Amino acid sequence: MDILVETSARHLHITQADLETLFGRDAKLTWKKDLSQPGQYACTERVDVVGPKGKFNMSILGPTRPATQVEISLTDARMMGITAPVRESGDLAGSPGAKLVGPAGEVELKEGVIVAKRHIHTSPEDAEALGVKDKEIVDVVINTMERALVFGDVVVRVHPNFRTSMHIDTDESNAAAAGGEVYSNIVK
Amino acid sequence: MDILVETSARHLHITQADLETLFGRDAKLTWKKDLSQPGQYACTERVDVVGPKGKFNMSILGPTRPATQVEISLTDARMMGITAPVRESGDLAGSPGAKLVGPAGEVELKEGVIVAKRHIHTSPEDAEALGVKDKEIVDVVINTMERALVFGDVVVRVHPNFRTSMHIDTDESNAAAAGGEVYSNIVK
Repeated sequence: MDILVETSARHLHITQADLETLFGRDAKLTWKKDLSQPGQYACTERVDVVGPKGKFNMSILGPTRPATQVEISLTDARMMGITAPVRESGDLAGSPGAKLVGPAGEVELKEGVIVAKRHIHTSPEDAEALGVKDKEIVDVVINTMERALVFGDVVVRVHPNFRTSMHIDTDESNAAAAGGEVYSNIVK
Repeated sequence: MDILVETSARHLHITQADLETLFGRDAKLTWKKDLSQPGQYACTERVDVVGPKGKFNMSILGPTRPATQVEISLTDARMMGITAPVRESGDLAGSPGAKLVGPAGEVELKEGVIVAKRHIHTSPEDAEALGVKDKEIVDVVINTMERALVFGDVVVRVHPNFRTSMHIDTDESNAAAAGGEVYSNIVK
């Protein structure tokens, strides 16, 4: 079974409280376009995420979440001067913070800046077809013309709402020359 | 046999003529520190390499060469707005150019901007021990804690002057979380 590879550029997820600090009282996220995972969408709202050495203007992905989380690549982390750990989404304890700057205010984020651990979203049905379980760590091959590789340390996440796809960051995508429509396969 | 992994950040090699255009008549490269390959060194001279969307200030690696060559990552290429191909060093035909800006002048480079193809430098003796030949394409495993992977499409370059090491760019290094002293092994 081929798994679509999707590249996640730097972005953030945000709490309703932080959204209101940055964009004003009663601010709401504005839908811009759907993402591949059902219910997830890119928003028109953007914020500056500021580190000791540099900043990036990043888009917010909705809906709002219980914790604000900034996802960057290790290349981004170096440019920003932030030592961000490779973590699964939501595993933020002890991660570094950053300053968020919006049109209505600023948030001094105490923690929440991570480099996303590469992962596969899949449904229970597809997980069975793939022969994998939730939280399983697998190897995944990407056979591009110029930069074929096998990613180890890929975590599988199974949920009825998930559409099967692999998410990697821009460093990983570039290391595989995985621009365009690229598919991967779990190595068994 | 373990192979030291070295990460090449964006840099350029330069002709004597371009060096003089950028730094003035009779300009010479100034040694700053030796690199792992014998005879190669980083220089104190730096230039801005300018693309349609952005620029980076890059260090020059000496000695001078028969052709000016800019080596960037695909992340850099995107930020600069340059569609750089993955190529072996010296294979510059049809590659894009960029503007080089130095303290004494500018060079409109017509071609020479590439993303270096990942490669292993090795001596004839080590090549024999590794069981590989010049120009062979091999798979190489890097077993980091968080981002283990196997790079395909790694080209072997054998020369009596080479010290055995693997060279990857910053995207590839980050995809493997290969900061610090990391070793790799050819997969046979």
